[in-house]
Amino acid sequence: MHEILIEEKILARNDEIAAENRLALSSRGIYSVNLVSSPGAGKTSLIESMTQHLKDLAVSFAVVEGDLEGDFDAKRVESRGVPALQITTGRACHLDAHQICHSLPWVYGHEGLELLIIENVGNMVCPAEYDLGEDAMITIMSTAEGDDKPLKYPAIFSASELLVINKTDLAPYTDFDIKKARENALKVNPYLKIFETSCRTGDGIKEFAGYLAALTKSKMK
Amino acid sequence: MHEILIEEKILARNDEIAAENRLALSSRGIYSVNLVSSPGAGKTSLIESMTQHLKDLAVSFAVVEGDLEGDFDAKRVESRGVPALQITTGRACHLDAHQICHSLPWVYGHEGLELLIIENVGNMVCPAEYDLGEDAMITIMSTAEGDDKPLKYPAIFSASELLVINKTDLAPYTDFDIKKARENALKVNPYLKIFETSCRTGDGIKEFAGYLAALTKSKMK
Repeated sequence: MHEILIEEKILARNDEIAAENRLALSSRGIYSVNLVSSPGAGKTSLIESMTQHLKDLAVSFAVVEGDLEGDFDAKRVESRGVPALQITTGRACHLDAHQICHSLPWVYGHEGLELLIIENVGNMVCPAEYDLGEDAMITIMSTAEGDDKPLKYPAIFSASELLVINKTDLAPYTDFDIKKARENALKVNPYLKIFETSCRTGDGIKEFAGYLAALTKSKMK
Repeated sequence: MHEILIEEKILARNDEIAAENRLALSSRGIYSVNLVSSPGAGKTSLIESMTQHLKDLAVSFAVVEGDLEGDFDAKRVESRGVPALQITTGRACHLDAHQICHSLPWVYGHEGLELLIIENVGNMVCPAEYDLGEDAMITIMSTAEGDDKPLKYPAIFSASELLVINKTDLAPYTDFDIKKARENALKVNPYLKIFETSCRTGDGIKEFAGYLAALTKSKMK
């Protein structure tokens, strides 16, 4: 019982800080999203692919990257001319609100920023429980992973507002059934808004970036 | 500091139980492996694909499945005529030694069992820290995930004895460089024995199953 009590205390404290982050970002008119997925589902590629579209739509954005070690992802994003901050979590399998809180001075340093994209550590379990203060959690699943993932990792699909089914270009070479994946996801969370994308062909990227831009602009009103 | 101390205490207790599991399985001549990967890298498919080869090699084996919810994987394995026990972890992103300890009476119920395959929850972080008492940890990564995974999730590659690069049939349709993945994995852990497999084409499955059978038989001597 002690372990559970301690965990609940940690989560309660996380939620408090997350609420402060949300208020702080909102008061500055910054819309924020939390990208979660398995390792290798294409979170960083999705950010890279969206970059030009978001720039075309005049959305000023920055990225906070979460990884156990290294700054591979921050460098990839920066090479596209997007400000990126790398948080290394060491042994932790998820970002937490406290880490995001510490990144906010860096975020505020970018004048006129409208959109903060947080890329979480690759993990389909624990990020579901750690609110970072974001406006929307976005789960990305790839067609290489299996269309049963929503049923096997329901918490993350329940916690998300948006779902991106990525790597649609690979679907013809796998047993992944996009229709079934959609059905499984909506079974777990009927409110999910679902997009289909391929970072290789560019399919669906403009639509997803456009939707994110619209959410961002609506926040500023 | 308290959080870290508590975590270390939990891990120390886990290691104690893992040592007991290891001793108990060894004393019965049962070789055990712990399959870890991202969600959707193909752990269950690999078990399904190996089944006939292991039967041909007269290896008697059973499977313990770890998932947050449901018994999808146990059912898949059982439909191939392999005894399977499902452990549901609820919110936990990994199996622990205590759960495996509780599964041992079921394991022992299968007379003449030589190989226990434990399929962990899909997660590339926390399973690295939770010894289950297995003889070998096997990381599975798919060619859909990116060849940089060993550098971004080094702990799990370090903790493993074997690495399976799965879904080689998808490699031509991705940017995944198998040679680079091998180099990155060996940079993190020079002792890794690496296999390449495709559950769709069957490539490499026989070799991997044969190696596992040889490890199993050598344990019995």
